[in-house]
Amino acid sequence: MIGKTTWAIAEGYIPSGSTDPGDPALVSHETVCILNAADVDADIEITLFFADREPAGPYRLTVAARRTRHMRFNDLSDPEPVPRDTDYASVIHSTQPVVVQHTRLDSRRPEIALMSTMAYAHG
Amino acid sequence: MIGKTTWAIAEGYIPSGSTDPGDPALVSHETVCILNAADVDADIEITLFFADREPAGPYRLTVAARRTRHMRFNDLSDPEPVPRDTDYASVIHSTQPVVVQHTRLDSRRPEIALMSTMAYAHG
Amino acid sequence: MIGKTTWAIAEGYIPSGSTDPGDPALVSHETVCILNAADVDADIEITLFFADREPAGPYRLTVAARRTRHMRFNDLSDPEPVPRDTDYASVIHSTQPVVVQHTRLDSRRPEIALMSTMAYAHG
Amino acid sequence: MIGKTTWAIAEGYIPSGSTDPGDPALVSHETVCILNAADVDADIEITLFFADREPAGPYRLTVAARRTRHMRFNDLSDPEPVPRDTDYASVIHSTQPVVVQHTRLDSRRPEIALMSTMAYAHG
Repeated sequence: MIGKTTWAIAEGYIPSGSTDPGDPALVSHETVCILNAADVDADIEITLFFADREPAGPYRLTVAARRTRHMRFNDLSDPEPVPRDTDYASVIHSTQPVVVQHTRLDSRRPEIALMSTMAYAHG
Repeated sequence: MIGKTTWAIAEGYIPSGSTDPGDPALVSHETVCILNAADVDADIEITLFFADREPAGPYRLTVAARRTRHMRFNDLSDPEPVPRDTDYASVIHSTQPVVVQHTRLDSRRPEIALMSTMAYAHG
Repeated sequence: MIGKTTWAIAEGYIPSGSTDPGDPALVSHETVCILNAADVDADIEITLFFADREPAGPYRLTVAARRTRHMRFNDLSDPEPVPRDTDYASVIHSTQPVVVQHTRLDSRRPEIALMSTMAYAHG
Repeated sequence: MIGKTTWAIAEGYIPSGSTDPGDPALVSHETVCILNAADVDADIEITLFFADREPAGPYRLTVAARRTRHMRFNDLSDPEPVPRDTDYASVIHSTQPVVVQHTRLDSRRPEIALMSTMAYAHG
């Protein structure tokens, strides 16, 4: 089974602005990419941390066996949406080993900018 | 021998659009860069994972001894091409320890964007 | 407790130029993102290394329990500001395990460029 | 002592084109950033790997005690320059533990693109 059950991402920031809000693919967003290469579904809990308030969450999702899921932080809504233009960080817990990668597409200016890194694998 | 025999990349997305499809170097692409610093050839198998279907592959390639190979996911075709504008992830198995890095060049807009990260080394 | 107490970032370079110095969010900057997911405050010391002089610091800050802090190197001032257009590197020590990620937003040209990577976790 | 003595970077590609070759800071380049946080000088050997020829090097440099050095692959010349528009990879050996990060600034188009990742730490 490839991966770990706890991951962390220290960077988090969803710009409120986008050059072309009508094109969903190019709206400014941050994504947590989760790969579950195992033959068992993985139940995921994401907790968000902020600079000046208590953490939010857990946000729950499932990554089915032998599937990947690229979840935009923009789309997390339960228990509460992720604020824009606000520093945050995240911790991801899974019932099964998974691999987690973090990406931002930033389209505040007309030309997009990208960044990506593997998350920090704990334990 | 430098590296590991199993690697994973949770992010994967090849934009179908490119600003200048006539320039191969600047066509939107994702690449898996594999370094085999050892004195023995490495036989590689890549498996692709998706959000809503069973995995594809294995895709097979060889990285010769003391060589690097930067393989575009765009160019994988056997057993099937990699769909564009579709989330995927990948697992790379090698018969010899190798080092794996992931890169995207995105030219949906006239100015390119880049991202890169070391893959997740398993075991 | 998620993370490590010692981290290092080998890259460091704050461009002096910005396309629009009036917009703080888009001023060229480098940031150290620190996540303290534990229930105890983390006292942080950052030391900066240069190409041709002795190290600067330590710069001291606190990341409260269950908080994240995204500290711009641009804003470090005590014991001395961080020079612009100058190569540097950094070592981060914490009294508690934390997770550290590094980011640069570069706006020397009108369109921003981004890069990010997890820092190197020591020990 | 922070770091490792062997590192690898699987990606390598120096674009020959630059939007403004007259501005050294914005010429397309790849850099290996090395941090030596210890109190002893580190003697470094870099070996380059290619797709279709034997490796080049070693390229030798020193990173003094308590210093960082951000070496552009563009500037490596002994025993031979690094070819442009050519895939390569690199292995970095050091006599002392160091931390290694990899960066590309790409200015083939008028707006720069950036990418960065920690190198792979061996052993």
